[in-house]
Amino acid sequence: MSSESQLPAALQMPLSRNVQLLLEARIPARLAWNDAGGSPRIAPLWFHWTGTSLELSTFAGSRKLDELRDGDLVAVSIDTEDFPYRSLRIRGRVTIEAVDGLTSSYREAARRYLGDGPGQDWCDRLADADQALLTVHPTEASASDMWSAGYLTERASNR
Amino acid sequence: MSSESQLPAALQMPLSRNVQLLLEARIPARLAWNDAGGSPRIAPLWFHWTGTSLELSTFAGSRKLDELRDGDLVAVSIDTEDFPYRSLRIRGRVTIEAVDGLTSSYREAARRYLGDGPGQDWCDRLADADQALLTVHPTEASASDMWSAGYLTERASNR
Repeated sequence: MSSESQLPAALQMPLSRNVQLLLEARIPARLAWNDAGGSPRIAPLWFHWTGTSLELSTFAGSRKLDELRDGDLVAVSIDTEDFPYRSLRIRGRVTIEAVDGLTSSYREAARRYLGDGPGQDWCDRLADADQALLTVHPTEASASDMWSAGYLTERASNR
Repeated sequence: MSSESQLPAALQMPLSRNVQLLLEARIPARLAWNDAGGSPRIAPLWFHWTGTSLELSTFAGSRKLDELRDGDLVAVSIDTEDFPYRSLRIRGRVTIEAVDGLTSSYREAARRYLGDGPGQDWCDRLADADQALLTVHPTEASASDMWSAGYLTERASNR
């Protein structure tokens, strides 16, 4: 288990407003990992932040499950798509746990991304699917917020 | 130079409506590459699609310029952040070219992402900056569109 005190500064409490907004956002996390040959791959995935780790879920049989090994280093970006941009980038090692059915983390994410009712409906449609939980244990994290950058002062004052 | 006939099927003309929309979208591309130790990194960057390659620009002195080598394999995702999701994932080798000032590709992207006037203003603010052009030559590409997936038929019929 990760503990809060071992987290990179950007992820320790109290979170900055920027990091808090990103960790609560309905933005898919973009996960970067390496295939068996060491070449980069990338995919968007729903995420759930536990307070000490970033949880992602993937379906049994997915290619990333063939390629990822327990303990591999991965990189994640959670960033807004509208200018001026805000972003949180995390690196760390991933642990992988196969489960029967959907992960509870995925069910929680479905409610956050889609809303309570539609999230439940979505999971009901996937009743026959099995998943694996990918837990990213952050060792590096950096956040940026263009609103707070000097060159946007004029714009920021009009917020 | 890449030629159109060597492109992965998903990027050959005529483009699917989904791929066309994504290549014209104001969504930052998420680029995944490896650092010198072979560990994944990720960053959001403006992109410009030339018809045969994906152009990204980065600023002189950026860490990714220290880490990327000419010819490295990279992965890019251009994907929507709202459900139901649409995505385009591209892999290929990158070529790197340092330039004086901003790349013309970046200026073009600025106009697309911000609009003509604000894009020009943005570039004017960066008059002292130097960049490098990162050109991704696609060797693999896959697109997905949840609107066209079977399990969304009920929702799609309400569009």
